[in-house]
Amino acid sequence: MLALIAGQGALPGEIVSAMAERPHIASLAGFAPESVTPDEQFRLEHLGTFLGGLAARGVTEVCFAGAVRRPPIDQSAIDAATMPLVPRIAAAMGQGDDAILRTIIEVFEEAGLTVRGAHELAPSLLPDAGALAGAAPEGAAAEITRAREVLTAMGVADTGQACVVHRGQVLALEGLFGTDWMLASLTARPDGRGGLLYKAPKPGQDRRVDLPTIGPATLDGAAAAGLDGVVIEAGGVLVLDRVKTVAAARRHGLFLLVEAP
Amino acid sequence: MLALIAGQGALPGEIVSAMAERPHIASLAGFAPESVTPDEQFRLEHLGTFLGGLAARGVTEVCFAGAVRRPPIDQSAIDAATMPLVPRIAAAMGQGDDAILRTIIEVFEEAGLTVRGAHELAPSLLPDAGALAGAAPEGAAAEITRAREVLTAMGVADTGQACVVHRGQVLALEGLFGTDWMLASLTARPDGRGGLLYKAPKPGQDRRVDLPTIGPATLDGAAAAGLDGVVIEAGGVLVLDRVKTVAAARRHGLFLLVEAP
Repeated sequence: MLALIAGQGALPGEIVSAMAERPHIASLAGFAPESVTPDEQFRLEHLGTFLGGLAARGVTEVCFAGAVRRPPIDQSAIDAATMPLVPRIAAAMGQGDDAILRTIIEVFEEAGLTVRGAHELAPSLLPDAGALAGAAPEGAAAEITRAREVLTAMGVADTGQACVVHRGQVLALEGLFGTDWMLASLTARPDGRGGLLYKAPKPGQDRRVDLPTIGPATLDGAAAAGLDGVVIEAGGVLVLDRVKTVAAARRHGLFLLVEAP
Repeated sequence: MLALIAGQGALPGEIVSAMAERPHIASLAGFAPESVTPDEQFRLEHLGTFLGGLAARGVTEVCFAGAVRRPPIDQSAIDAATMPLVPRIAAAMGQGDDAILRTIIEVFEEAGLTVRGAHELAPSLLPDAGALAGAAPEGAAAEITRAREVLTAMGVADTGQACVVHRGQVLALEGLFGTDWMLASLTARPDGRGGLLYKAPKPGQDRRVDLPTIGPATLDGAAAAGLDGVVIEAGGVLVLDRVKTVAAARRHGLFLLVEAP
């Protein structure tokens, strides 16, 4: 039996729709999922107890899907089953998101659970290489090369899965608040318009968690930022609500490319 | 005799004030300096002629100060003296800002001019290591280490001289539109407040051009972004209008630290 640890956004709902059988659904307190109704909520302070409960329920596999942020930890609320995990989680918290995710995966695996990627449960979320809308304009290849170089460099610092490039220059880089936030920061940009959004997993990223996603709002944001199009790395970026995403690209006159890495 | 190639912002004015003798002042057409009155304007299409004019005037040294952007080039306006420079400049234009600056420096040096850094002409713009306002809070050292790691990584991709870090997470990274733009993107941030702005030259950057700067507006922006303070690398970041900058830090209750690299 599989447990879906559901966060925010459309991804948990898409996974549940793609599965033959409804999984057990849990969510982190404070990050109620909009796209599914959880069977239980848990607090990070009770993680050990939560893991024990999954085992008792016969859960053998787990999938993390949807966005959460680091919750504030109430030291006094940590229960006995969770206490042994505290030093590792605390150490990871001081580092980047990858370190935290690696630790979380380890903790779940040590509890005997197999961690499955969202794309394993819903393979149709990962489109094949090709154009989903429009066509690559002249010069796009050079921009994509530049964007990859930038994301590779950012990946070393364990931050960001997206950037905006125009004529070889980096207009914006994704920070903690994500792609939509980055695109919003380009509204009313001083240089007018042009450029592309490039999105890809971090180099060496564990593909079972935190694969980057795009959806209709990404295309709306790209259009509002005056971009010409959006390019995602094939096999590494989930496309949510593909019909609406492609429709948004066409409506805005943006190209939407899936590029082999 | 020195020629100041003056761009936008307060830096050209500060340099002229610090010099014993007024230099010859030139500016790139379309980027009229606010802080000084140029003796001449030149277009990039006439760069070769401009360089010849400097030599004829007895200019032996040149200093680039203040912001410019890449001007649009009118191919039909390129004059005969500039034609031989076109292939190199065109090649550099497709790359990052560092490549362009390296090429510009080379072209000026090959014309017999010595390129001087703003800090050589106005050393007081580079404060010594120490606290200019407030004091480093507990935990600042770890944030600074993280910020340096991020900027080092970004430098490989030849982009950005600033980032905002909070609790080990990267809230924002500087893109083409600079630090003020990045800070403005954090107004009304979803996580409330906290964190610091870190600013430093790119690793291996030629210190004679494009040293990063801060000024009173940087502190205003940091306060509006809900940050706790600003940290700059000692010997690598120019502080414009230091009296007003320090006053702004105090008024906003921000720390302002100059950290040895």
